[in-house]
Amino acid sequence: MRYRNPSLSTAERVADLLGLMSIEEKIGQLIQLFGWKTFHKNGGGVSLSDFFQEEVKRYGVGSLYGTLRADPWTEVTLETGMSPREGAEAVNLIQKYAVEHSRLGIPILFGEECSHGHMAIGATVFPVPLSIGSTWNPALYERMCRAVAVETRSQGGAVTYSPVLDIVRDPRWGRTEENFSEDPFLVGEMAVAAVRGMQGDRLDRKDSIGVTLKHFVGYGASEGGRNGAPVHMGLRELHEIDLLPFRRGVEAGAVSIMTAYNEIDSTPCTSNQYLLRDVLRRDWGFNGFVITDCGAINMLERGHNVAANGEDAAAMALRAGVDMEMSGVMFRGHLFKALNRGLITQEEIDASVVSILTVKFRLGLFDDPYVNPEQAEMLIGAAEHKEIARKVAAEGSVLLKNDKRLLPLARDGRRIAVIGPNADLIYNQLGDYTSPQPREKVVTVLDGIRAKLADSEGDVLYAPGCRVKDVSEEGFDQAVACAAEADITVLVLGGSSARDFGEGTIDLRTGASLVTDRTASDMDCGEGIDRADLHLSGVQLKLAQAIHKLGKPLVVVYINGRPIIEPWVDEHADAILEAWYPGQEGGHAIADLLFGDANPSGKLPISIPRHAGQLPLVYNNKRTRGRYLETDMKPRYPFGYGMSYTEFKYEHLRIQPIDLTDDVIAKASVDVMNAGEVEGAEVVQLYISDLVSSVTRPEQELKGFKKIVLQPGESTTVTFTLSAEHLQLLDASMQPVVEEGEFLVRIGSSSDCYLEDSLFVRKS
Amino acid sequence: MRYRNPSLSTAERVADLLGLMSIEEKIGQLIQLFGWKTFHKNGGGVSLSDFFQEEVKRYGVGSLYGTLRADPWTEVTLETGMSPREGAEAVNLIQKYAVEHSRLGIPILFGEECSHGHMAIGATVFPVPLSIGSTWNPALYERMCRAVAVETRSQGGAVTYSPVLDIVRDPRWGRTEENFSEDPFLVGEMAVAAVRGMQGDRLDRKDSIGVTLKHFVGYGASEGGRNGAPVHMGLRELHEIDLLPFRRGVEAGAVSIMTAYNEIDSTPCTSNQYLLRDVLRRDWGFNGFVITDCGAINMLERGHNVAANGEDAAAMALRAGVDMEMSGVMFRGHLFKALNRGLITQEEIDASVVSILTVKFRLGLFDDPYVNPEQAEMLIGAAEHKEIARKVAAEGSVLLKNDKRLLPLARDGRRIAVIGPNADLIYNQLGDYTSPQPREKVVTVLDGIRAKLADSEGDVLYAPGCRVKDVSEEGFDQAVACAAEADITVLVLGGSSARDFGEGTIDLRTGASLVTDRTASDMDCGEGIDRADLHLSGVQLKLAQAIHKLGKPLVVVYINGRPIIEPWVDEHADAILEAWYPGQEGGHAIADLLFGDANPSGKLPISIPRHAGQLPLVYNNKRTRGRYLETDMKPRYPFGYGMSYTEFKYEHLRIQPIDLTDDVIAKASVDVMNAGEVEGAEVVQLYISDLVSSVTRPEQELKGFKKIVLQPGESTTVTFTLSAEHLQLLDASMQPVVEEGEFLVRIGSSSDCYLEDSLFVRKS
Repeated sequence: MRYRNPSLSTAERVADLLGLMSIEEKIGQLIQLFGWKTFHKNGGGVSLSDFFQEEVKRYGVGSLYGTLRADPWTEVTLETGMSPREGAEAVNLIQKYAVEHSRLGIPILFGEECSHGHMAIGATVFPVPLSIGSTWNPALYERMCRAVAVETRSQGGAVTYSPVLDIVRDPRWGRTEENFSEDPFLVGEMAVAAVRGMQGDRLDRKDSIGVTLKHFVGYGASEGGRNGAPVHMGLRELHEIDLLPFRRGVEAGAVSIMTAYNEIDSTPCTSNQYLLRDVLRRDWGFNGFVITDCGAINMLERGHNVAANGEDAAAMALRAGVDMEMSGVMFRGHLFKALNRGLITQEEIDASVVSILTVKFRLGLFDDPYVNPEQAEMLIGAAEHKEIARKVAAEGSVLLKNDKRLLPLARDGRRIAVIGPNADLIYNQLGDYTSPQPREKVVTVLDGIRAKLADSEGDVLYAPGCRVKDVSEEGFDQAVACAAEADITVLVLGGSSARDFGEGTIDLRTGASLVTDRTASDMDCGEGIDRADLHLSGVQLKLAQAIHKLGKPLVVVYINGRPIIEPWVDEHADAILEAWYPGQEGGHAIADLLFGDANPSGKLPISIPRHAGQLPLVYNNKRTRGRYLETDMKPRYPFGYGMSYTEFKYEHLRIQPIDLTDDVIAKASVDVMNAGEVEGAEVVQLYISDLVSSVTRPEQELKGFKKIVLQPGESTTVTFTLSAEHLQLLDASMQPVVEEGEFLVRIGSSSDCYLEDSLFVRKS
Repeated sequence: MRYRNPSLSTAERVADLLGLMSIEEKIGQLIQLFGWKTFHKNGGGVSLSDFFQEEVKRYGVGSLYGTLRADPWTEVTLETGMSPREGAEAVNLIQKYAVEHSRLGIPILFGEECSHGHMAIGATVFPVPLSIGSTWNPALYERMCRAVAVETRSQGGAVTYSPVLDIVRDPRWGRTEENFSEDPFLVGEMAVAAVRGMQGDRLDRKDSIGVTLKHFVGYGASEGGRNGAPVHMGLRELHEIDLLPFRRGVEAGAVSIMTAYNEIDSTPCTSNQYLLRDVLRRDWGFNGFVITDCGAINMLERGHNVAANGEDAAAMALRAGVDMEMSGVMFRGHLFKALNRGLITQEEIDASVVSILTVKFRLGLFDDPYVNPEQAEMLIGAAEHKEIARKVAAEGSVLLKNDKRLLPLARDGRRIAVIGPNADLIYNQLGDYTSPQPREKVVTVLDGIRAKLADSEGDVLYAPGCRVKDVSEEGFDQAVACAAEADITVLVLGGSSARDFGEGTIDLRTGASLVTDRTASDMDCGEGIDRADLHLSGVQLKLAQAIHKLGKPLVVVYINGRPIIEPWVDEHADAILEAWYPGQEGGHAIADLLFGDANPSGKLPISIPRHAGQLPLVYNNKRTRGRYLETDMKPRYPFGYGMSYTEFKYEHLRIQPIDLTDDVIAKASVDVMNAGEVEGAEVVQLYISDLVSSVTRPEQELKGFKKIVLQPGESTTVTFTLSAEHLQLLDASMQPVVEEGEFLVRIGSSSDCYLEDSLFVRKS
């Protein structure tokens, strides 16, 4: 059997294997079952379910989803779940069964959720993507992705359903936290970092996993920010904005792409031939495989209603270019019949099988399908991974306000009251897609401040005050008394994407949360929890107002998954730190920032509006954006904004046009100096404004950024190279072109604070 | 000169005339100047401006805009303006000069604003289009359009810049009032009625005017409801929703179309060749002319920034298919040079001239360019026009709530308090695009109720309470005292589109209003006044709450231009009547409804949301619409909803499929009975839901309606004929097709109250 010979090329091995496969086995490769349903944990070991054994014997199993996933959907808890070592052993057992009991011994592809750490018990929980986006540090994210890949692959996970590359237009969307930014350039940089970090040098290393770019495409532009709602978009916007980071990720070598739930102009993405065949494969040369989001083929039948029955739905997806179905329900139930009815062809199935097998060979699964449980035990949750998580959380927190330089706080014995619903609730700081955590693993803000002051004299007092969503004020008195005793209050407010462990709150088909009338849960964000308003939930604002009446210094820390619009806090808090969901080390990172052991360097990757009625509001809107009676279209905090404890001075912007002999059009440089008294990191941002163009353009667009570290008094020159891709547009015939004329080049510290000069582009 | 010979065909006359024209004269025909700048009123007469005389002599003048328009933009007031007779005389004078002093004697085309009555002093002010849409009575609207045409043409106005056919997606938009509906079918029916009513049997009658369908296209889908903001839309939605009523209007024979300010997917409508040439002229066979919105070509240079200078902008618009420029600034300034630079061709100019001259010939302007001022005096503001205005206002008011059958009120001597900022302010009930009015011409709600009770014993008390936007509560005490003295309160709240007569509030280029910090004005709606929120402005809610505390029966009448979201009022008012801007006879119409002399029959042409955070919210959304944590996507009052003083029973829905031998697919019938005790009119509505389709479809779509009048106990059978156009969609290749399968046919009294049965369509 030639396909077992590692010295042959992958293409040869795939072709050989394909020739040996029955149609049943081929379809088996297109199916991804829920991994947690393949086994039972009993006593110290694991036993395989009858269902799984039967599947292996009859068809082989192409892939398993979330075998190590632990959360209310999978009903895997800290008590019932597996340790890293046990998980690796279980995966080995499952894999061994598949390899030894299927006719051709094709190994299973284990796919796992790893957007901000592997969603398995014991794995490191990093900050959510919105925090990662706020770091503007793709190199740091790449290191984080390396750590995630190491932890995941050590247990046998071979592909991750990340990065999420959706472009957020409307933060009413509950999944805002899962995305990097509203800007396609920034997301594109993160896409490349994710591919490099996760996939590493080569996929068949024991510390590499394949990425899945998702959700393809337009998912962040759903109507009204409602999850999976229709997308109204023309082709130009689709290509210039939403497709851009996917193209970057494909060019970087991503092996897998996941279709989005939504439709675009009446065509569901999961049945969209133009997107999956013309754009992705023909134009971009993508040679990995396409997987659906969970339940997306069902939605073709019920929801989108573009298929009359399961066979039509399954056939429609496959024909459009879907290779694998997450959950496998529709492919398993209907693909045979669809083939027999002539709705699809053998050749179409073969093409999908080839795509999937190719990735399995590239991952080395045929040559060494097993992992070393001792490695898993050693690597998962390693100290260096915690350090990365802490660093991302620090760089991903954005200092929005700091009146009279209240921050950093001195360790001078002053008493600090730590108050608020998110000060000491571990799940509230971890975001959606997180596994159960032992209390001691997660550092809350209260933990972090206590640890910081452990050797100091100052007292740390604590009171929760209220819950995120609950309207009870019974904790107010205690909280106010606590703040009254202290010299300063750190008030930790925000939201929560902590999945409810109660019943009836989960869409059992997709795993998303469902809105219910139950108010005990704090959850006001996360997949399925879109909001009509962006105020603080519950009585949090009233708590802030009660504390503020004491007249003492007030620091507000937000822990949450989407922009908060709360003008009273903006006005009355002395300092505001937006930490998003900062992950398991969040408390340390926030304490580092509050006390100056770290200097804030995060910048907003998303505009924070003044008023929910401004939505949709993005920084890169068109010049004809309009305004409202109540407010113009200025955000409360602009894209790219974020304060530091030091001050950076920008000087000497110069633009050097280059002859158009090669792709480079100009170089733009600026001198940046740290004019303050502490070391600090600054994100130097490049924006381009095309003054006249054959089609309308955003007033400005981010086209480059560099994060630099400067000592007090130190200065450096930052240079950006401008090439065609930074200046081009899609013209009337949708061709990319750099047009002649004047461009404004802006370099600065945010989208509304920059030096500016003109670049004239003339064609020779 | 053959072109003067009426016995020749229009085409022959146009060709002859074109052959005689210089390039200067040709360009002159493409230009529409501001009419109010062509003359000065002095003493009893009118003298022509030097500027105008010079234009006529040098180029001829193609068209004049708003010669009779009176409002703050034109600075024409009741004092400085002209009576109907004077207006007709002035237009004759202007026309005479043009005919006698231009080389070829080409008459001027006078274009006027007549969306809800001619925007000239003395003309009848009808309810705004949102009220007209609420009548669901195209036949009544056609009668109204006849009256408008009679009044307008009697003064020489020959084309109107109406109907407005935009599909409102988001009522934050200040121009919501100017539109009929969120539904393309309903708007399409009104479009046909407008063409028939305005253009009559033939255009050269003295009581016909040409219509201008506007704004072409997508203007009602601007981002966030902001006026002229970018439109995000794919081609299918554009054709199925926004283009539909324009196609209906073109098929009905509309002679003119106006381009919209907005872009769609980065292409401004004013430079969109696809829309203006491919769709409008090639596919639809439109043979009228295309005019820009005011300042739209300037926006190509500044705003959209797709033109580097005026020549490029002018050339771009003409090339795309624009024939005439409103204001003429850019065509006059740049078209010669653009021609000399080769940016446009003689042929392109000729084609536009032909389009315009053809309409002038069809209007009979060459054969009889003058009007009879005595006719103008007699016809304008005629009693029968007032009657139509009153009828439209009554049918266009929607009864939203009527607890315990509080309405209609008895004339039993009870004292009625009429309270609220919109109870007795004439301009607040007229909407945008209205001319100055003498106080006695407009019937306010207070006037109407007083007139109604003039012969009764009951007292009518009055207090304004507050202003629309102002936050002063100093009128509360008086209002509460007034209500306390009465047995029942009619509280007239809402908004205002009354243009401010102060300075600095008008965009002098476009005539739209500008948002300013001045709070004295009531204006919170109208062109340029978009809102971030849809609550009642100012302290109106507090006034309602103060009155409600008295515990007496409370009727709320809303006078306003877009949906109001005020849950407290929905809950606590005993009855709510939404009257929109009901025009000059509004007070009579509302009194008729309140006292039962008219029975409410208006139905909502637009969904009224529960929460501004639900926006955009339309009834015909897709099945994947999603929901929010705070609220699902149900509206507070659904599309098609409206109460009556009687009750209609629907029975016996039956669907009769017809062989597909001709275009008819099925007939659907229902029996409707008036089960109450008073005569009433009911809008019987037909909705179609396509259960499975190759592209996604709205959950349901309006495809027919009939307004019927039934006596108590009377019943009738209403039958709808379903043809291909009611069931078809645009398939993957954008071809219209009726697909096989099951459709739900729903007939009922609103979009959420209907009988339902299945129709199976099979192809033979």
